[in-house]
This record gives sequence, structure tokens and C-alpha cells, in this order.
Amino acid sequence: MDNDNNGKRSNSVTFVNVTEPSRDLEETAGGGSTNTIYAYDNPALTASTSDLPGSLRREIALRNELSAGSNNFTEIVDSDVHTSYSHKLRAIFSLAKKKVCSIWTKKTLYKRFPILQWLPLYNSDCTVGDLLAGFTVGLTVIPQALAYASIAGLPPQYGLYGSFLGCFVYILLGSCKDVPVGPTAVAALMTFQAVNGRGVEHAVLLCFLSGVIQLLMGFFGLGFLIDFVSGPVSSGFTSAAALIIVTSQVKDLLGISASGNTFVDTWKSIFKDIHNIRMWDTVLGVGCIIILLLLRIVAQINFGDKSETSKTNKIINKSLWVFGTSRNAILVIVSGIVGYFFCTSGEPPFKVIGEVPQGLPDFQLPPFGYSKENNGTITEVGIMEMISNLGSGIIVVPLVGFLENIAICKAFSNGKPIDATQELLAIGASNVLNSFVQSFPGTGSLSRSAVNNASGVRTPLGGLYTGLLVILALLFLTPYFFFIPKSTLAAIIIAAVIFMVEVKVVKPLWRSKKSDFFLAIVTFVSCLILPLEQGILVGIGINLVYILYHAARPKISVEKLTSVGGAEYLLLTPDRCLIFPSTDYVRNLVTKHSIRQGIPVIIDCSHIYGADYTAALVIETLTKDFATRDQPLLFYNLKPSVSSVFEGLSPKDFVVFYDYSEVDELLKNRKCIKKQMEIMEV
Amino acid sequence: MDNDNNGKRSNSVTFVNVTEPSRDLEETAGGGSTNTIYAYDNPALTASTSDLPGSLRREIALRNELSAGSNNFTEIVDSDVHTSYSHKLRAIFSLAKKKVCSIWTKKTLYKRFPILQWLPLYNSDCTVGDLLAGFTVGLTVIPQALAYASIAGLPPQYGLYGSFLGCFVYILLGSCKDVPVGPTAVAALMTFQAVNGRGVEHAVLLCFLSGVIQLLMGFFGLGFLIDFVSGPVSSGFTSAAALIIVTSQVKDLLGISASGNTFVDTWKSIFKDIHNIRMWDTVLGVGCIIILLLLRIVAQINFGDKSETSKTNKIINKSLWVFGTSRNAILVIVSGIVGYFFCTSGEPPFKVIGEVPQGLPDFQLPPFGYSKENNGTITEVGIMEMISNLGSGIIVVPLVGFLENIAICKAFSNGKPIDATQELLAIGASNVLNSFVQSFPGTGSLSRSAVNNASGVRTPLGGLYTGLLVILALLFLTPYFFFIPKSTLAAIIIAAVIFMVEVKVVKPLWRSKKSDFFLAIVTFVSCLILPLEQGILVGIGINLVYILYHAARPKISVEKLTSVGGAEYLLLTPDRCLIFPSTDYVRNLVTKHSIRQGIPVIIDCSHIYGADYTAALVIETLTKDFATRDQPLLFYNLKPSVSSVFEGLSPKDFVVFYDYSEVDELLKNRKCIKKQMEIMEV
Repeated sequence: MDNDNNGKRSNSVTFVNVTEPSRDLEETAGGGSTNTIYAYDNPALTASTSDLPGSLRREIALRNELSAGSNNFTEIVDSDVHTSYSHKLRAIFSLAKKKVCSIWTKKTLYKRFPILQWLPLYNSDCTVGDLLAGFTVGLTVIPQALAYASIAGLPPQYGLYGSFLGCFVYILLGSCKDVPVGPTAVAALMTFQAVNGRGVEHAVLLCFLSGVIQLLMGFFGLGFLIDFVSGPVSSGFTSAAALIIVTSQVKDLLGISASGNTFVDTWKSIFKDIHNIRMWDTVLGVGCIIILLLLRIVAQINFGDKSETSKTNKIINKSLWVFGTSRNAILVIVSGIVGYFFCTSGEPPFKVIGEVPQGLPDFQLPPFGYSKENNGTITEVGIMEMISNLGSGIIVVPLVGFLENIAICKAFSNGKPIDATQELLAIGASNVLNSFVQSFPGTGSLSRSAVNNASGVRTPLGGLYTGLLVILALLFLTPYFFFIPKSTLAAIIIAAVIFMVEVKVVKPLWRSKKSDFFLAIVTFVSCLILPLEQGILVGIGINLVYILYHAARPKISVEKLTSVGGAEYLLLTPDRCLIFPSTDYVRNLVTKHSIRQGIPVIIDCSHIYGADYTAALVIETLTKDFATRDQPLLFYNLKPSVSSVFEGLSPKDFVVFYDYSEVDELLKNRKCIKKQMEIMEV
Repeated sequence: MDNDNNGKRSNSVTFVNVTEPSRDLEETAGGGSTNTIYAYDNPALTASTSDLPGSLRREIALRNELSAGSNNFTEIVDSDVHTSYSHKLRAIFSLAKKKVCSIWTKKTLYKRFPILQWLPLYNSDCTVGDLLAGFTVGLTVIPQALAYASIAGLPPQYGLYGSFLGCFVYILLGSCKDVPVGPTAVAALMTFQAVNGRGVEHAVLLCFLSGVIQLLMGFFGLGFLIDFVSGPVSSGFTSAAALIIVTSQVKDLLGISASGNTFVDTWKSIFKDIHNIRMWDTVLGVGCIIILLLLRIVAQINFGDKSETSKTNKIINKSLWVFGTSRNAILVIVSGIVGYFFCTSGEPPFKVIGEVPQGLPDFQLPPFGYSKENNGTITEVGIMEMISNLGSGIIVVPLVGFLENIAICKAFSNGKPIDATQELLAIGASNVLNSFVQSFPGTGSLSRSAVNNASGVRTPLGGLYTGLLVILALLFLTPYFFFIPKSTLAAIIIAAVIFMVEVKVVKPLWRSKKSDFFLAIVTFVSCLILPLEQGILVGIGINLVYILYHAARPKISVEKLTSVGGAEYLLLTPDRCLIFPSTDYVRNLVTKHSIRQGIPVIIDCSHIYGADYTAALVIETLTKDFATRDQPLLFYNLKPSVSSVFEGLSPKDFVVFYDYSEVDELLKNRKCIKKQMEIMEV
């Protein structure tokens, strides 16, 4: 199968090499099929282009035209190179050797510890940028962490526990400066659904296992798996997740109690308890949402013209931006003060988050089993039981976390390629270490990365200041967290995630491709009705069926043409590769049209870039059928790599040609053979 | 998306229409993206071909050359037609209406009852052919039926119960004259594995459910599902099944007792009981195998030269063929007589099959539940429990049965298209009705269809005589079946199925495509180690992953070229459609090469026949990235249908051109725009 490479190169790089396929073909022909005829004339190929009709002239004309003299070969990227078996084995061995050696090379070290790349270039400008950005992100992450813990169904301190160690790990391993690792709304929601009310031990174990899975995926280079989550599926999933998160916060906003794992269940539960609605919680919550949305607009205000901004205007704009961006922190402080006054003067009219334990969490092993007390009897819950409780969450939580993280990297990459493997290792390590400080699963946060980027972060070192701020909060601020109203936190979450409902993609999706639009809708609805992880799997499944359908049903154009010599023939042009699910379909179509027309048939194989054994079987049958019907069948412009697949079966009467001027001669020859056979029979 | 059809037609049918895409593009451009530039010059297209460099000239040159005057458009087969939404809805409605109406048209009636096509043309020649063939098949099916029942783990009469009613049904509904419906070795083995020793009620219910599933598949047009079983998977599966069948018969051949569901289990069980080996069973069995293999050769003997055979030679050859083909029946009769003499003179030295109930089976409902006696207590087994016992067999047994049947149709179709739906309905109805006479699942038998074809069958009516012969056997011959030695039946099975081990495909598979060779091996080994149905699913799964990988990793050729005007540029040519799993890969490759070279980039989209929303997102990002880097990016020869997908997102700086002579101008314009902007900024 070495042919492929040569043939490909010769076809696509320089026209001087176009004679090469003929050598390949002759070799193959010599190796197996004796009845194969090649209308492939070497002298004609080296003649001037004006004497060369057909595809080769087309090819050469194009190359001449393109190159006009210079034609520097750069590279052929061939992800799916066909080499001979021994070559392949050798390649695998050398790759393995290379991989083992490369672990210790300087280049790999720099790639796997991106800090080595940027730390030597670190300067005072970077320090200022990172300090400002890290501090701003810290102000955002503290209220968010408290709030996201409630999405995960855990006490508020667990959000903070997951917000500092991961930042430090990411400084060492992260490849994208804008990613602030920590709890996110979607990860918290997925944790909630996987843990399903079984307590904090399950959440911490999930964090550990997610990290392990991400590390393993990174180690085995499985980052490509998220390529199978398409844009529409991702949009549908994110939008549904946002709505579920909003739903999960409605109970705190209204001060009622409700539960449920899916969108529908939660709303049912809310309506059951709607008569217990608490006025002051509702007023405070809705008020906070309005204030947050207004401050969000404030952050985007720009005084003065864009091109000529005075210094005063610049300062005003910057101040507005800082004020708007710290809206969460400001709101938490203000409402905390309000809560404090109400609490000191008796029972507050709204629910507050209550006792938050002071100090850093213990550094200890994640819980691989724990004791549960139930009606006085103590039962041991083992690691296997915990794993089976978490179910498919163990796979889906790390995948979705990775998906979120890569989405951020893409958004801020400015066209630079992303090292998915490195990101997997970075967030995997963050999660594993976070599980030692009793955190639930986290990943890069899109909302905070926007703040980070806008605050002028220069390197991942910004995470250091964020992490330190969280540690300070844990050490000194927790007593004051007591007074923060629950409905304020609910308002912070709602005001943030409603913008995750991707209303803006509806129009382009509809305009771009209807089937993708419906796919997004189906994914969205599935995610609302089913548990989130099943919903996204439904979307991915439908998408994969689409690819399979695509492979199974190629388009074939059918034309009735007349050759220069006056012979009528049918030209069939399949538009993609011939592989097993499509072969019978193609055979039936070719047979139908051939029998109906009863004239010679030419199959134009220009677009057939691949084939398999099943296709070869069908080609063999086709040539046999045509021979039985005594109807000529010719293959035009078949790539040598594909041809070699077909010739593995040594099909009889298999005629390939590359030059349209020979059509008449080939058809004439076929007739002569037929006549001779008739004479012999008489 | 109507563009697609027009565009496609215009591209692939006649060069006069090549101006059409421009109209489509202008329409689309007017609809959405304002920054899109089209280097699409109508006058140039209608000019003489010598003035047209680039793809269009190539296209036109090709068409001129192909057509040389006449150019009759026939048809474009477009399985995946893109139409606008309203069009699609209308199409669905009209299709539904058509479908409802078509059920009652004469054409559909003739299609669904193929007997209406051939019965009016039936003549005395057909009668002779069908009678001879039906009788010969009958002589083959009776010993096979007795033997296959033992593969299924059921008493011998159940094989005969499944060998007559299905034949009669197939006369009415069958579309392939060579198919003799009845028990087959593979179907019996699958039944054995699905029933797993739970008794005949499960086998009969499985027959009913298989028929229902096949009918439903036929009704919903799901016959295409077997397209996803590729040649290598099918070969690996059949070979493994043959070996398992041989294994299952070894115990009867040696007169020992053994059990087991998979290949490995059964051999373990055989070796455990090997010390109980019975000499006479073994001698008789091995002797029978040798005789059968010799008679198989006898059937193929041809005296005299092929071209000039005398009448005597012809008669001798025919007699040898009849003698060889009836080898199973002859052997059963002879060994039955031997058994009879031994039995009447005391205990026979070998095991005989024993009592076979006389008469036809009752026509009754299949068992939707039954009573089971266990240690004196009677428990009721409900339908749901039976279904859950059968497990995935309910899906896999009908699918494999259908697969076997279609393989026969293909083998004897002589190039005519096969109506898979009709075959599903025919064997589905056969199985449903067979379940009313206590049969286990059956389908078309490959070994008997070869006999049928070679005996000169003309129409499906041959099945009538086969069925009548089986009925006569049930009515009058069962007392004599008592004396047939078990090891003779085992020998019949072994001598038949060892030829199902597809040794002959190894070489062509290896030569044709190495990956397919390994796939066949993996399927083969999986089917031996795991239960058969799981084994084939492993093979299909790997095959689907291959398709997905294929979609995810296109090949991209990279060339550095110089335009006529002297501008250097990079030409990137992806070789297949751009859909979601490949988009990030393509983006990374394009970005990597573009940044490394830093010269204008042209993406040749000639082979991109499809795209989706995710690809559009990436194209939007790419154009943005290139604009940020101030590196020109041009798209060459983008199909209007694909272009419309990309333009759904209104990407900025999205430049498509169809004429290579404009490259220099386009690149110059881009530079001018840049310079103007620089001037403005200064």
C-alpha cells in the first residue's frame, strides 16, 4: 500500500511525477490480476499538455497555472497514511521508542510544564497585569464559589475549598493564560445530578475520579473525543444546563423548599411548595437580579468617542468597568451588611446562609469509603458502592469539564492551536489535588475567564493572586459569610447563567443548516427532560447516526454522454469514498441505471479517496455482472491506492483508464473481444 | 438550500449552466453577509474556454471532451437532497400521501406479491424444473432438519416442523427463486445460544418474535441496517459460527456428553468427558464424514471434454451429480437400515436418535407463557420473563437470519437489484407462521439454495414440492427415524459446515486491505470467545469507529505555490467533507501551516461536498484569526450548497473565488485595504 503515498504525492504536488502511478499499477497488476487492462500510456504523459486530454491534462493545466515556474513542495499531511504492513510495524516501534525517549527531552519538558516557557520572560508589566486580573477574578470567584456550592447541593464552604489549590496547579501546567480553574455552574450541576443527595463524600470522590479520568485521557491522547460533540449539541446542552441551574435557584430566590433532579421534576416540586413563598426573600432576590443586570450594563458603558478618548473619560470608563465587574462582590458585601443588621436585631426576614466553618480545609485523602448512620445503625459504604452510585457521571463529568475548558481556550486563543492534551493534564491534576482539600469537581470558568482577560491578565500566574485571596477569605472572612442572604446568592447565579442560554445561535443555526438546528432543539429538550448526561448523549448519538448515514448514502450523478468517436455511454460519478455501508446502495444504483440504458458505463472515480474490502467485493460482482450482460464497464481516474484495494480480489474484466482519448479505443476493443468470442462459439 | 440541487446539477451536467452558481451566491450574499466578496465573473464564464484558467476551464474542457456535441442529461441521484424547510415539509407530506395511496396500486400489489409476476407465465418447463429441484431440496432438507434441531438443542422433530409452512409462505411472498426457507445451521446455533437450555417454548417464541421484528423492519424499510455489516465482519462471524457448530457436534460424533454456550466452554466440557468416548459412534461418525466428503467430490466429477460432451457422458455426469447431491439422504437411509438391524438384534453399539413423534404438529398460538415444574412445584413463566430470558437474541437472531437470506439473494441475483424489503416481509411472515407449528427460527439456507439452483429451479414454486415431501415424511417416515445413528447426523452437519469456514477470503483480504483483514480476525476471535451475538456486535462496533475516525481525520495536502503574478501562497486541499468531528483538526492544521509560512493561504474546496454548522463556526473563527494576523485567506471552488452553510453565520472577510486568474487581483486588493487602513490610523 505504499502506492498510496507515492500516488498521492505525485498527483497533488508536481506534474512531473504523474508517471509514477503507472509504475505502481504495473507492479500491482503483475502481482495479482491478469485480466486487468490499463489504458495508461507513459509517453503520452510526458508529452506536451496540449496532447493530453482528460484528467491528467486538467491536473497539469492546473498545476502549471498555479505554479507558473516555481513549485516548492512543502508537506503532505496524511493522517491516515497507508503503508505496507512491515512499514507499519516498524513505524509503531519507532514511534514507541520516540515516545519513551521524548518524555525526557527538553522540548517535551517545556511542553508539559508551560511555566518554563513564560516564567523566564516574566517582567514587571506582567506582574501588574496578573495582580490586577488575579485580584478581580478573586472578587468574582468568592461569591460565585459560595453560590455554586448550593447548585451542587453542598454547604457553601466547599465551593471555596475548590477555588485555590487548582489555581496553583494550573500555574505550573496550564497552557492558556485566561483560564481560572475552580467551581463552575455546569460542573456543579453535573455533580448535583451524579451525587443525587448522597452527601459530600460522593462529591469529593467524584472530583478525584474526574481528575484521574482526565489525566488518563491526557496520557492516552484521547482529547480528540470531544471533537464528537458538535456545535449544535454543545449549544443545546449549555442552554438546557443554564435553564436547569436557574430552576435550581428559584427555590432560594422565593425562600421555599423544593427538590428534583431534572428540569420538569424541579418545577413540579416548586409549584407544590409555591404557597410557602416568603415575601422578603423574593423582593431581595428579584431586586438583586435587577441591580446585577443594570451593573452589567454599567460595565460596558463607554463615555466619549472611541477614536479620541480624553484621559478623564478613560478613567471614568475604567472605574465604571471595575464597578460593574465587581458587582457580585459589591452586592454580597452590601446584602451581607443588611443581613448583619437584621440578624443582630433579631430574626432576619430572609434566609441567610448561616454558619460557614472558619479556616483552611484539612489536606487528606479523598474518601474511598465512609460510615453512614441511619436510624442509629452505622453502615459502611465501600468504594465500589460509591462508584456505582455515581454511575455514568464518572465519565460524563470529566468530559463536560474538559469541554468547558477547551471552549475557553478556543475563545481566547487568537487563532493559535490549542494543546488539548496539556489542558487535560492540567485540569486533571487540579481536580485530583482539589479532591485532597474536599472540593467537588471544577474546571475552567467561562464567566471568570472573560473577567480575567478583560482585566489584562498576562500569564497563568494571575491564578496565584486569586488563590491567595480565596485563602485569606477562608482564614478571616468566613464569620461574616453567615449573614449573606441566600436569595442574593441565587440572584448572582441567575443573573450570570441566563446569558448562557444561547438565544443568539438560533438564527445562524437556522440559516446555516436546518438539520443542525433541529439537532440543537432535540438536544436541548432531551437535556431538560432527561438527566443532563443522558440528554447530551442523545444529541451525540443522533449526530453520529448522521455521520454513518452520510457514509452509507453517497450521491451519484448520472449523465448520458457521447464520446468523440460517437459512442454513447453513461457516466456515473460517486462523490465520496466507497466503504461498506454504501457499497450495496451504489451497486444497486449502478445496476439499475446500467440495465435501463443498456449502453457502456464509465464510473468516474475522481472523488473516491478511499475504499475497503467490502467495496472490492462489490466491484468484483459488478464487473462480473457487466461481463455476463456483455455491457462494457470502465473505471476512470481511479487512485492507485484505491485501485490496489480493488485488485486484492483479482477481479476479472476490471478496466481502469486515466485518459479520455482512449475511451473509443477501449470500447472498440471490448466489442472486438466479444465478436471473436462469438466467432469461436459458431 | 435549494442552491445545492441547482448548483450540483449545473456543475455536473452541462457546462452551459456553470453560470448558475453565481446567481445562487448573489442571492445568498444579499440575504445575509455583507462583507463577503465574490470573485465570480459572469462574462468570463461565457467566454471561450481558452480564456478561462482554473477549475472552470478544467470542468468545461472535460465536458467538451466528454460530450463532443451531444450531452443528454439523464438524472441526478441525490439521496441527501438539500431543500428548503417548506420544501422538505411539503415533500414529507406528499411522500406520506403517496405511500398511503401506493399501498393499493397495482404496481405495489405486484411488488409485494411477486407470485403475481411469475405465475401467469408459468408453463410445463417450469413445472419440470421446479418439481425436480423441489424434490432434491426435500431430500436434503429432511436429514438437515433432523440434524439442525440438535444444534438448536431441541428434539429432532422440531427441525421438520419448521421445514414446510415457511416454504409455502415464501411461494407467495418471496422475490428470489433460489431461496429455500427452513432451519439453517447458523440460525439453529443462534437459537441455541439465545434459548440457553430453557426449553422449546422459548425457541418457538423466539421464532415468532424474530418474524415480527423482520416484518416490522420490512414495514419501516429498515433493511438497510445490514449494510452496516461489512464483508470482513460477516466472514469472521460465519467462520466462527461454523467452528462452533462443528464443536457442538463433536460430542455426538464421539458419543460423549458435553455442554457449553461458547467455543471455549464446549471444548473444555468435551475434554472433561473425553474418557467416556464410545468407539462405534466415533468410527461410524468419522466414516460418514469421509464418505460425505468423497460424495461431495463425486457430485463435481465431469467426464469428457467440456465443449463436446457425448450424450452418454452427459447422462453419467448427471447421475453422478444426483448421487452426490443426495448424499445426505442416502447416508441417512443406509445408516438407518444398519441401525434398524442392530436395534432389532438387541442394544445397538452406537446412540440412535430414538422416538420421533408421528404426524403433523398442531396449528396453535405460539407460547406466550407456560408452566414449569421444578421439584414438584409448578411456576408460571410469563411472556415478559421469557422475553428478558431471550435478551438481545430477539434483535440479533432476525438480523442474522435476514443477513443470511440476503447473502443468498445476492449470490444468485445475476446482477439484478434485490428487494430487501420484500425479502424481510417474506421471511418475517414465514417465521411468524412457522411459530404456529412449533418451529424454531429459520431463514433461507445457503447450502440448499445451491442445490436448488443447480437442480434447475425456475420459480419459488419449487418450495411447494419440498414442503409436501417434508409433510409426507412427518406423516409416514417418523417411525423409521428412530434408528438413525446420532453420529451420522453429526457427520452430516460437520461435513456441511466446515466449508463455511471462509479460508479462501484470507488471501484476498490480506492483499486488499490490511485493516479489514485484522477486523475479520478480531470478529472471528470475538465470536469464538464471547457469545456469537456479542462477537458480531464487537466487529460491527469496530467498523463503525473506523467510519467515525474517517470522518474525523480528513487528509489535507499542503503546497507552496507561486501565482502568475509572482505572489507566493499556500494551497491547502482537504479531501472530503467538513463536518463536526474534523473541524478542529482542520482548523489546527490550517493554523499551524499558515503561521509557519506567513504567506497568503488558499483553501481548495473542490472535494468538500458537505459541511455543517460546526464547520461554519470554525470557518468563521479562521477568517477572523486570519484577519487579526492580517494574512489573506481565500476559498477556492466552494460548492454553493456548502457556501450557503458557511454564510449562515455571516462570517467577515469570507472570500470565495472560482477562477485562478483572479488570485493576483484578490491578493492585491487585500493589501490595498490594509494600506488604506494604515493610512487612516496614521
